[in-house]
Amino acid sequence: MSQKKQLRLGAIIQGASGNMSAWRHPDAVSDASINIQFCQQLAQRAEQAKFDFLFVADGLYITEKSIPHFLNRFEPITLLSALSLVTQKIGLVATLSTSYSEPFTVARQFASLDHLSGGRAGWNVVTSPLEGSAKNFSRDKHPEHDERYRIASEYVSVVKGLWDSWEKDAFVRNKTTGQFFAPQKLHTLNHHGKYFSVQGPLNVGRSPQGRPIVFQAGASEQGKAFAAEAADAIYTRQETPELARAFRLDVQRQLVENGRDAEDIRVFQGISVIIGDSPADAERKYQETAQLVTLESALDYLGRYFEHHDFAQYDPDALFPDIGDLGQNSFRSTTDEIKRNAREHGLTLRQAALEAATPRPTFFGTAENVADGLEHWFTSGATDGFIVRGGTPTAFDDFIDRVIPILQARGLYRTEYEAGTLRGNLGLREPENQFTAKGVHSDALTA
Amino acid sequence: MSQKKQLRLGAIIQGASGNMSAWRHPDAVSDASINIQFCQQLAQRAEQAKFDFLFVADGLYITEKSIPHFLNRFEPITLLSALSLVTQKIGLVATLSTSYSEPFTVARQFASLDHLSGGRAGWNVVTSPLEGSAKNFSRDKHPEHDERYRIASEYVSVVKGLWDSWEKDAFVRNKTTGQFFAPQKLHTLNHHGKYFSVQGPLNVGRSPQGRPIVFQAGASEQGKAFAAEAADAIYTRQETPELARAFRLDVQRQLVENGRDAEDIRVFQGISVIIGDSPADAERKYQETAQLVTLESALDYLGRYFEHHDFAQYDPDALFPDIGDLGQNSFRSTTDEIKRNAREHGLTLRQAALEAATPRPTFFGTAENVADGLEHWFTSGATDGFIVRGGTPTAFDDFIDRVIPILQARGLYRTEYEAGTLRGNLGLREPENQFTAKGVHSDALTA
Repeated sequence: MSQKKQLRLGAIIQGASGNMSAWRHPDAVSDASINIQFCQQLAQRAEQAKFDFLFVADGLYITEKSIPHFLNRFEPITLLSALSLVTQKIGLVATLSTSYSEPFTVARQFASLDHLSGGRAGWNVVTSPLEGSAKNFSRDKHPEHDERYRIASEYVSVVKGLWDSWEKDAFVRNKTTGQFFAPQKLHTLNHHGKYFSVQGPLNVGRSPQGRPIVFQAGASEQGKAFAAEAADAIYTRQETPELARAFRLDVQRQLVENGRDAEDIRVFQGISVIIGDSPADAERKYQETAQLVTLESALDYLGRYFEHHDFAQYDPDALFPDIGDLGQNSFRSTTDEIKRNAREHGLTLRQAALEAATPRPTFFGTAENVADGLEHWFTSGATDGFIVRGGTPTAFDDFIDRVIPILQARGLYRTEYEAGTLRGNLGLREPENQFTAKGVHSDALTA
Repeated sequence: MSQKKQLRLGAIIQGASGNMSAWRHPDAVSDASINIQFCQQLAQRAEQAKFDFLFVADGLYITEKSIPHFLNRFEPITLLSALSLVTQKIGLVATLSTSYSEPFTVARQFASLDHLSGGRAGWNVVTSPLEGSAKNFSRDKHPEHDERYRIASEYVSVVKGLWDSWEKDAFVRNKTTGQFFAPQKLHTLNHHGKYFSVQGPLNVGRSPQGRPIVFQAGASEQGKAFAAEAADAIYTRQETPELARAFRLDVQRQLVENGRDAEDIRVFQGISVIIGDSPADAERKYQETAQLVTLESALDYLGRYFEHHDFAQYDPDALFPDIGDLGQNSFRSTTDEIKRNAREHGLTLRQAALEAATPRPTFFGTAENVADGLEHWFTSGATDGFIVRGGTPTAFDDFIDRVIPILQARGLYRTEYEAGTLRGNLGLREPENQFTAKGVHSDALTA
């Protein structure tokens, strides 16, 4: 059984887990999003369960209507750096936006995290869906959706170029001769592009993974194309195994078109889970958490996806209102899905808002039910793995205690880490240095 | 003796310690700047010795002529975040430039570090002396010296405003009523200034120290004025106790002119130390490390302060060359001092370069000699404390083992931490929230 291809798992750290109101649950740690003991315990439990990585989302704009665990939370780079010395094997994937940051700083911080953690850093590249972000970053306006992806594409190529500043064995540190590094193994990027001019070199040596793992998290066509060009892994959420399989095949096809190998990327489905002793017990747990959400907070939650639109102005029991193109420059794939779902199922605003605010978990029922579902998605080629969050405050623990052992018994999941790096555990190849890759003439050699 | 006013100490983490070539020393950890085990041990030893804080410098531009421990080092925020969970009491002060970063991100990262560490974060505000930094951040040119300080002044006021976004007790988290926070305790900055427009609020709650401690590290007149306006602590290097005392009094006078209390700031002298069994033994240790520096590397080192000027073009044994105003827009106070020193002492270029590259430690000799020197500076009012780095790779350990016990026996230094926060150990007051300070009408109350 150990020869069987194995699925891979990430664990989301995001507040108390469950829906936006789950902090009210009797079992919830209500300040989880800013409680380092909580985060450290979650990280260590996930590592004991041999999760590939922790995954931290992010956002750059809040209002008083934002959901509670977005109001007061750790910044991802600092959180994962802190966890780097109290974990040994688990990957550390932080979300960071290319729309409101500097490639030199971001390249440094992730390279530094990769060194701190001995090769466990990952960067989830996002372009910031929230329009309001511009207001916190001295910008007149938020770049529109397609331009954000053009910026991201150049940005990530700059970051990768900086990560290649030093060859793996550039630092000689010969105490006798006084030679600290080999000058021909230092490469200066000299990038002058449409959006960025970055000279380099980076003041961090090549990192243990060659370079940190790059995730991409947008499901729009632009996001998918960007992933096929530049990412090592994708975070997505597809409704059915069939859609997921088509998505994965499409990404792999685009990889090959870009001259990459179809196996050079790992697709992860973002899922939530609720596990009960029986399906009815799982339903009871879902209802218990769902009932913590008020209509008012659900409408606020919905509004955030649609450029902070005020949905309280409509009759909640009328059909979902026609709001035109709202949301197109924000969470495009999510808002398209909400509108489509409301239209197809004839939902009222109340129904659509509550469904968005406290969605039914993707995987639901007994531990066997959940394991069956994961196995089906995985073995049918719908996904390479899952990024898991609990649908209630205790569901993630249930997943570890009850589902992981079943997956392991079925030979679908590891019982020990294969490697010390995230790259190694994901089974991804060591990247070539662009300055020394075959056929590329190094600037240092010609200088 | 325990009633005596006590001095305060910071510990520099910077490579192998000693001069730019000290990595060659037989006792040196040659990859110290990127070795987390080394940094963690140093942090834990400094904490056992009851140091107030760790202090990490930074830079945003390297060339192949930069000194070795600048070429490949941890980024400060990630390094100190990592150390936050493997230390308990020691402060964590990271250098970060206001010239090439976004106030919203910097406010978040330091607030997050303050939460992670339970109130131990400090920000050493610098404006980036290196001209070349612009090339790594898509800028046409490096802002000139005075403008950098105007930018810094507005920048820090924005960051402090963001740190005041939430009152201390804003997060109610009442599971029964569903109230997560008290809306009247949320404050939106709405800053529109010359250099920055930042709306807020910050997505991190008020931090354990109220706000992180703000250090300032420039010794120019603009730097001093900025410190008097905005800083809780200063890092400076003065040549004599008399100059240091005048500097400190001048800063305190400017504080009072700004409506602050003279006791609202802590001045630290940056020092290096070498401790021997006798003065001759200390001299031997100094020479042993000094002789690792070659003339070529000393000239490169000197050049970095003067906008990467090529000093190899001059006769090293002629008088220090006339290089005009070079250095005025870079490390102004340092370059003024190098030029003045060379002129006054009639130094050759070789002498000036070696003196800059491997300066004699400020405090030198036996442990008693060093303790005497520190006591004299402290009791004469020259300084509130010292930020210490070893003049050889083992000198910091010598300082801990041999000097600290003398300072403690003399009642000049703590044997236990007074508080769990950096603010508490520095004896600084909890800051008022600008939105609720007496006489200020809160926007939330009028909204």
